[in-house]
Amino acid sequence: MKATLLQDSQLLYEPNYEPVPIESAIEVEVLQAGICETDLQLIQGYMGFAGVLGHEFVGIAKSGKYQGQRVAGEINCACGDCECCAQSLPNHCPNRTVIGILNHDGAFAERVWVPEENLHPIPDSVSDDQAVFVEPLAAAFQIPAQLDLSDFQNVIVLGDGRLGNLCAQVLQGYKKSPLVIGKHPEKLERLAKLGIDTELLSEVSETRFSDLVVDCTGSPSGLTTAYRLIKPRGTIVLKSTYAGDHSPNLAPIVIDELNLVGSRCGPFPMAIEALAASEIDVDRLVTSRFPIEESIKAFQVAQQKDQLKVILKVKDNDSDTE
Amino acid sequence: MKATLLQDSQLLYEPNYEPVPIESAIEVEVLQAGICETDLQLIQGYMGFAGVLGHEFVGIAKSGKYQGQRVAGEINCACGDCECCAQSLPNHCPNRTVIGILNHDGAFAERVWVPEENLHPIPDSVSDDQAVFVEPLAAAFQIPAQLDLSDFQNVIVLGDGRLGNLCAQVLQGYKKSPLVIGKHPEKLERLAKLGIDTELLSEVSETRFSDLVVDCTGSPSGLTTAYRLIKPRGTIVLKSTYAGDHSPNLAPIVIDELNLVGSRCGPFPMAIEALAASEIDVDRLVTSRFPIEESIKAFQVAQQKDQLKVILKVKDNDSDTE
Repeated sequence: MKATLLQDSQLLYEPNYEPVPIESAIEVEVLQAGICETDLQLIQGYMGFAGVLGHEFVGIAKSGKYQGQRVAGEINCACGDCECCAQSLPNHCPNRTVIGILNHDGAFAERVWVPEENLHPIPDSVSDDQAVFVEPLAAAFQIPAQLDLSDFQNVIVLGDGRLGNLCAQVLQGYKKSPLVIGKHPEKLERLAKLGIDTELLSEVSETRFSDLVVDCTGSPSGLTTAYRLIKPRGTIVLKSTYAGDHSPNLAPIVIDELNLVGSRCGPFPMAIEALAASEIDVDRLVTSRFPIEESIKAFQVAQQKDQLKVILKVKDNDSDTE
Repeated sequence: MKATLLQDSQLLYEPNYEPVPIESAIEVEVLQAGICETDLQLIQGYMGFAGVLGHEFVGIAKSGKYQGQRVAGEINCACGDCECCAQSLPNHCPNRTVIGILNHDGAFAERVWVPEENLHPIPDSVSDDQAVFVEPLAAAFQIPAQLDLSDFQNVIVLGDGRLGNLCAQVLQGYKKSPLVIGKHPEKLERLAKLGIDTELLSEVSETRFSDLVVDCTGSPSGLTTAYRLIKPRGTIVLKSTYAGDHSPNLAPIVIDELNLVGSRCGPFPMAIEALAASEIDVDRLVTSRFPIEESIKAFQVAQQKDQLKVILKVKDNDSDTE
């Protein structure tokens, strides 16, 4: 099958990749998939991953209870047997595979194998493009899932990229009137059109007024910027992972008694509902699309500063005729 | 007056230091003071401090409402005018001085000037030695002041030194049965005698079972060790500051959705009450004492691995005869 993979740290498009079906999982015929910041980190060595990339996708389930339906898939595939799984923390199962990230071939391919319990049907009111955003939007909804947002008055989102945009929209939906601070005027402009306050990083004053900063910069400098903006005893949510170590000074965490909260994957049902209700505008986030055969070029484009979501088209959606 | 100070990054004992009285503050005649891990970091360059060191002390107030009484003093001296002060966060006032740490001469001297609102009288049932522990013990009580301990079942304290010992005793008082993990058999033995579970770091298994780890190591490696021991979604309290940057990888914070909580100074009244009620055993923590004239030697001893609290004796307590 056609697949885009990482092999010996090299990004490759392989027209005749031999998939290894996972018997306990459902085969999903991929319609399209999105390139995520994590994918860009993976090709720089994050997680040391090798295999088919891709974890934001919509496809058609080939068997099981969603057979013939469009589905999106949660990416953490838990063992079901360990203490984490017993404590309803399957996303943290130490034996888990993670689709397109850890020991599990991903969705930049014609087919991906996903445990049935990870699948969520996509309602007809959600387009294929929108469905690609279920996974990253769920990650944004993890913020209200982890924190009681009523505790916070002044909320800042650092980063105007893919994830920053989604987090800002989710926080806006919770009436938190976030201020998005970013480096890219044209990306901030997209947010301003949604009624979200924005500011260029270079114009931010030193005043420390925020009680919640969500770092979506995907950069080691995000935390340092957050230190400048957060009130003492404030909360910083870290949404970013990236390749390699960096050297943040942790003294401000202690001195200012900050609360640093790591936040990763989130609730798919909230994301699907919000998309179905048109509460989140993702259509404007698609800046480019390529057929899977042009994956290498798609990755190059995804790394350009003016890009938000780049979509890989794998198959025409002919599910209506099935 | 006699004073021990940091000048041009050099630790000095100065028999004829000329103090600069702070008119708005109360003059306190220092009886004795304790050397703290922070002092050891300050002489290595932490905070770039210059001036008289010392922030754990007991003395006699020379004026004001506690005149003639023994007092301990909170170390953060707030401006009273800023937004932090208005929000009852004087310990985080951006204009604050910090006794013996930031723009404020400390208590390794015959006299120290302390704002009256920072002073707490010491009851007769608390000895001079015990009173020196009010400040670090208050820092340990900041843990239950910040966190709802009922959320946590498996509690680990990393570090068997001065602060680790006090944090473990406080957590023990809250029936949390902490496990203290340290590097020093003799220090762990002291804790074991108080009925506290202990384990040598070298013997710790890789099992990740704790939902609260309190890092009192005073070392950049503390956080890395905490990552090995904490459950996903667990809480790590950082009690340590130290000179210089270090390079913790923050990816585990995001991947395991950890909560990192900085914790610094704490409530003096809780510490004084606990000492008065003999709920915390601090007498065993005094491993050496020196007259202030031998401060340089005292600092050398305080850096030895077998030491816990080293006390500087400044003046005989003749308050009974005043």
